[in-house]
Amino acid sequence: MSASVSPSVARVGVWLIGARGSVATTVVAGCAAVTAGLHPPTGLVTETPMFADSGLPALSSLVFGGHDTVDCPLPKRAEALAAGGVLPPGLPTAVRAELATADAEIRPGGPLPGDTRGDPDLITAFADDIQDFIRRYDLTRAVVVNVASTEPPPTGTALPPSSLYAAAALRAGCPYVNFTPSTGLDHPALAPLLASAGLPFAGRDGKTGQTLLRSVLGPMFAQRALAVRAWSGTNLLGGGDGASLADPAAAAAKNAGKERVLADTLGTAPEGEVHIDDVPALGDWKTAWDHIAFDGFLGTRMVLQTTWQGCDSSLAAPLVLDLARLTARAHEAGLSGPLSELGFYFKDPAGEGPAALGEQYAALAGFAQRLRVERPGEPAPHSGSDEERR
Amino acid sequence: MSASVSPSVARVGVWLIGARGSVATTVVAGCAAVTAGLHPPTGLVTETPMFADSGLPALSSLVFGGHDTVDCPLPKRAEALAAGGVLPPGLPTAVRAELATADAEIRPGGPLPGDTRGDPDLITAFADDIQDFIRRYDLTRAVVVNVASTEPPPTGTALPPSSLYAAAALRAGCPYVNFTPSTGLDHPALAPLLASAGLPFAGRDGKTGQTLLRSVLGPMFAQRALAVRAWSGTNLLGGGDGASLADPAAAAAKNAGKERVLADTLGTAPEGEVHIDDVPALGDWKTAWDHIAFDGFLGTRMVLQTTWQGCDSSLAAPLVLDLARLTARAHEAGLSGPLSELGFYFKDPAGEGPAALGEQYAALAGFAQRLRVERPGEPAPHSGSDEERR
Amino acid sequence: MSASVSPSVARVGVWLIGARGSVATTVVAGCAAVTAGLHPPTGLVTETPMFADSGLPALSSLVFGGHDTVDCPLPKRAEALAAGGVLPPGLPTAVRAELATADAEIRPGGPLPGDTRGDPDLITAFADDIQDFIRRYDLTRAVVVNVASTEPPPTGTALPPSSLYAAAALRAGCPYVNFTPSTGLDHPALAPLLASAGLPFAGRDGKTGQTLLRSVLGPMFAQRALAVRAWSGTNLLGGGDGASLADPAAAAAKNAGKERVLADTLGTAPEGEVHIDDVPALGDWKTAWDHIAFDGFLGTRMVLQTTWQGCDSSLAAPLVLDLARLTARAHEAGLSGPLSELGFYFKDPAGEGPAALGEQYAALAGFAQRLRVERPGEPAPHSGSDEERR
Amino acid sequence: MSASVSPSVARVGVWLIGARGSVATTVVAGCAAVTAGLHPPTGLVTETPMFADSGLPALSSLVFGGHDTVDCPLPKRAEALAAGGVLPPGLPTAVRAELATADAEIRPGGPLPGDTRGDPDLITAFADDIQDFIRRYDLTRAVVVNVASTEPPPTGTALPPSSLYAAAALRAGCPYVNFTPSTGLDHPALAPLLASAGLPFAGRDGKTGQTLLRSVLGPMFAQRALAVRAWSGTNLLGGGDGASLADPAAAAAKNAGKERVLADTLGTAPEGEVHIDDVPALGDWKTAWDHIAFDGFLGTRMVLQTTWQGCDSSLAAPLVLDLARLTARAHEAGLSGPLSELGFYFKDPAGEGPAALGEQYAALAGFAQRLRVERPGEPAPHSGSDEERR
Repeated sequence: MSASVSPSVARVGVWLIGARGSVATTVVAGCAAVTAGLHPPTGLVTETPMFADSGLPALSSLVFGGHDTVDCPLPKRAEALAAGGVLPPGLPTAVRAELATADAEIRPGGPLPGDTRGDPDLITAFADDIQDFIRRYDLTRAVVVNVASTEPPPTGTALPPSSLYAAAALRAGCPYVNFTPSTGLDHPALAPLLASAGLPFAGRDGKTGQTLLRSVLGPMFAQRALAVRAWSGTNLLGGGDGASLADPAAAAAKNAGKERVLADTLGTAPEGEVHIDDVPALGDWKTAWDHIAFDGFLGTRMVLQTTWQGCDSSLAAPLVLDLARLTARAHEAGLSGPLSELGFYFKDPAGEGPAALGEQYAALAGFAQRLRVERPGEPAPHSGSDEERR
Repeated sequence: MSASVSPSVARVGVWLIGARGSVATTVVAGCAAVTAGLHPPTGLVTETPMFADSGLPALSSLVFGGHDTVDCPLPKRAEALAAGGVLPPGLPTAVRAELATADAEIRPGGPLPGDTRGDPDLITAFADDIQDFIRRYDLTRAVVVNVASTEPPPTGTALPPSSLYAAAALRAGCPYVNFTPSTGLDHPALAPLLASAGLPFAGRDGKTGQTLLRSVLGPMFAQRALAVRAWSGTNLLGGGDGASLADPAAAAAKNAGKERVLADTLGTAPEGEVHIDDVPALGDWKTAWDHIAFDGFLGTRMVLQTTWQGCDSSLAAPLVLDLARLTARAHEAGLSGPLSELGFYFKDPAGEGPAALGEQYAALAGFAQRLRVERPGEPAPHSGSDEERR
Repeated sequence: MSASVSPSVARVGVWLIGARGSVATTVVAGCAAVTAGLHPPTGLVTETPMFADSGLPALSSLVFGGHDTVDCPLPKRAEALAAGGVLPPGLPTAVRAELATADAEIRPGGPLPGDTRGDPDLITAFADDIQDFIRRYDLTRAVVVNVASTEPPPTGTALPPSSLYAAAALRAGCPYVNFTPSTGLDHPALAPLLASAGLPFAGRDGKTGQTLLRSVLGPMFAQRALAVRAWSGTNLLGGGDGASLADPAAAAAKNAGKERVLADTLGTAPEGEVHIDDVPALGDWKTAWDHIAFDGFLGTRMVLQTTWQGCDSSLAAPLVLDLARLTARAHEAGLSGPLSELGFYFKDPAGEGPAALGEQYAALAGFAQRLRVERPGEPAPHSGSDEERR
Repeated sequence: MSASVSPSVARVGVWLIGARGSVATTVVAGCAAVTAGLHPPTGLVTETPMFADSGLPALSSLVFGGHDTVDCPLPKRAEALAAGGVLPPGLPTAVRAELATADAEIRPGGPLPGDTRGDPDLITAFADDIQDFIRRYDLTRAVVVNVASTEPPPTGTALPPSSLYAAAALRAGCPYVNFTPSTGLDHPALAPLLASAGLPFAGRDGKTGQTLLRSVLGPMFAQRALAVRAWSGTNLLGGGDGASLADPAAAAAKNAGKERVLADTLGTAPEGEVHIDDVPALGDWKTAWDHIAFDGFLGTRMVLQTTWQGCDSSLAAPLVLDLARLTARAHEAGLSGPLSELGFYFKDPAGEGPAALGEQYAALAGFAQRLRVERPGEPAPHSGSDEERR
């Protein structure tokens, strides 16, 4: 960070892969709405007292851009989300300027059909887009967050698109967060680049609904020594996610994360399946039903059922903002490698860590503390002038 | 403990108030069944590795007795529970001897209508019963656990029955556990006796179902900074508990505990009521429905619903055994006063402590460790002769 | 109907008691929206083929007015409903003119605190309002529908407000529909007036959600000879209805209807209670949970649970439009007394009839047929001039 | 039937395909239990007043036999069902004699691996078994009911086992009921035999749980003109049925029936899938969750969810007894061809008829009446001697 940059313009970039999707649109609109005081920061853990002195970049300092393969402008997408009840009725109008600004920073993603560029060329082009964004806005740094539709697991050695973007993030020197179950950084071909990049990165597949619940219910059964016999689940979701997860291969990637949480918290994987159904009539809303058959004392059979009705974009967006701020601050603090303390946010955390949400929250609190003390004298981007800091 | 007592007969008494109820019957039958290897120790947290070296009395060392105002013998009660699916079909026959032995140690409770004895006489009589039990069995110690039907909150200055029994426990020098929402030790008139007794005691109102769930779901919402707007609940239960809790005054006592957990974990009490319905057709089975309306990012309204279908006696019995063992060991280790580390088990814990189940579990783990090291050289009752210990 | 009135202006009045409430607002806005082709006639049974030739007044011929004690204008009320998701976002603007027109026809209801008029004066004043409405619009006829908040059951001999309005309807020569559980026509003091009025009227307390479900599930259990042991229910609702039904007396009126449906369809009243909770956070949305414990063959215990999440105003409004059209047509056809064939719409139908929804639907189909053939040559109000008909 | 047979021994055979399965065992044990007055006839529609004078064979007149490929004797199977809570604890002992008698009449089914007999030989062998059963017991008649595990739909022209048994039933001159989704009579190769047999037969795939519910909820939505957008369902079941339906092909057969009911009652097939999961931990118990997204007035989105927790054998057994009695009586009354009035019992009824349960019940009532009047003077098999009849 240059000493000549005044604190008021010390800005951090958030580069979104899938920048015109529901989650991205909610991220951009929501950041503007909370910054403007139109809504309280519900769902933003980084706005709770725990992070008061952790030096996170302010919401008002975030600048958005990204890649996408579709054309629908953010202001229009926001109107559609408001019609579906995902955004409050008047919000798209209230934050139209911020949406338009972000929309202007969205670059074509790929590869699209007919694109003859090879992987190295694509990575270079994507990294150039990111670096250009940083340069033009004179950003302190930028983080890359994947919020694109889930892709099927790669079948061969070719890099899937999510890995091309992840490689571009590394090439551009940016921390990377994979909010989806797609491959992203977790491809063997990226290992050398990752090792040499010295960048922090966070885990895979945001924990927004059913798995969030499982990460508190699993520990409850385990701590009470109750024997879970079968854990079955059905997810109904519309929107783009419903369609992409109706692909059994994509669903398999997502379900692996859900089952991992159960096996990790219960100590053993119970019977039971997870279904993901595409139900377009539900739009961006999602319903998850879980049925848990467990044995109590002397083998008495009991049942817990849960029904979670939420809006995926609304659940995801504040976590994306949290992760962008946390990884940006981690980068500033010189951290690199897997940020295992961010397991609170993921079905499949990077690094080693607990699977129970309570313990993950404790780890996150430790991270908040660590950011506070990690490098004495290291200024937070919004906490004073460079002059004063030195 | 006399040095002349051989380790194999170092026994610990468990004196149950409400000794012929469903919970007590399940406690006695279940302890015998697990001791005999007929069933795994599902639901017994004290049988998990966490307590391996904490010096707890073995299940096989527990001797049961108690007070009750009804006459139905335990073996017959167990048959009724098996017919209702609370106990496994063949169990009453398999453990008939142990049930009959415990039944022979049940003394008449009170005061019954027409009883002209005053409170001091009743307390003395109850304490004599307990001390006689300890003497005849040459018990190392005994703990008193209240598992009687919930009584209405006291309206005047008279001691309610649960407090008479609690006073008798103190008089007899026994640790006390109140597994019900009844008053028990929490009566101002008992304060002097409690202060001078130097005995350990544990909190009030076991956390078996709906509140157990709330103690993990409340923290989940709080940790994710989601705004709970309304938390409503309905409990359907038959058995004796259904009838006694249909009394609005008794229900009020129980509901206070449930709401406390929410207020403590959410930081504020949300809208919503809790209903307890007596539904005799459900027998000992209980169904609890919770409906939680919460706001996500930008005020998006979402809903979580849970349905818990359990058998109250099966849920309570292993916790009662846990608490009997833990308080007996605490007594042996010289602890006195409120055992706040046992908040894991209660809606209304004794002493100060966290309300989130995960943190309560961590506190319990700390307690397990503390018992291990509290008094170096202090033997567990089943781990060797006094000779060897010195 | 005067022969000189051209068909295009043969209009029917709908006079709403509670004309500025959620239901009334949805009725007026929805009638305009469907008439204008902005929405399909979902929920309007009178728009299904069954009524194609029954001579019902067209939706476009309905003119709205009513009484209310509050001042908030309908266009503003509609905006609030749209913000709460009860009306589609753009609808209040699209039908603002129709809302304003209806709002101009709303007269002050009562009695308000401080009003010194006696019952006869109030009835006269209300009847005058209705007759003035009919006269000014040159209406063929008008029907009066009570959609006001539920009032507590009357405790003395004084007429409750709903009965004052019902008397005014009779006085004004209008068919009457009581969509609420309030007393309305069912007051002994109104019996003579009712007997002499020769007007048709329909039953009490619209069947919109939980009871609608019960009217199909009860018969299912009965027809399959399954033994329902307990039927328990909890209703969570915000809005004005939640607050007024939180009054135990008002709730008792509502619950009586729900229980009647069960007793009538099952042949016996099962165990179980019904709760109505005021949960302001839910706004106009309502959640009803039912838990049905039943015995199958050889006494095997089974359970059905239902959760109904609906918007009361959206459920009620099309039924109100149906009933206004049906009773107007019944009046035209010269019918009088209780219209027992409209039991399909009510928890507490007028007259005798089946309680199972399927049979009620068959009765309604018979009514549609009867209207068609009741008086050969009797014209429907929108189908031509008297001249042409003869 | 010989004139010398006294009325008291006029017996009717019930030949069960899958005679050692859960359903068959419950049928035999339950018939004995109800006959002996040990249990009320819960779930038996044929024991309701509607059939009082329809001349149905008495439960006490039924004699059981059948085919199966497994060896576990019925008394032992009944013990296992009692341990799983499907039969009451003491019942297997109480009706051991009747179970043993039926077990002695079970003949080996097939074809088993290694069986070299061709289809004609198998059909002949099966028909001989049935005729031998009729002869030895001097039965008035026998009906054949398929309650075997669901088989995958046939892929080629070969007859699946269920069709071999169905052909044997025709060959033996017996009415046939297919309580499963397997092919049975519905194979083109059986058409000529069926046409010439002149026997009555009833539809396919008993309607016991989720589809029973759908057959009352579908009509409710249709009658109220509510627009069902998506109807999604998940079934969790253990037992043999869970395993056989985990085969996607078998599940497809079952699901086709469920979806047909929706399409028939709603008028159009909504979005949504149905899952059948094998969850061995649930044993013979079944949980079905349905999620119905529907639009109300002005497109307001609402949701109904249902959870059905039942025991499949307990739900199926009384229907099997009903169908055996009804088809036996139909045969006696000279009826032949599809008994479309029995649609009340099936997902896929034989012949044409309504899909709404209420209408099917009305049709069944008509059938009860028809049996009463069909052939004046025609006695029920238990109501007099052949002499008197002629």
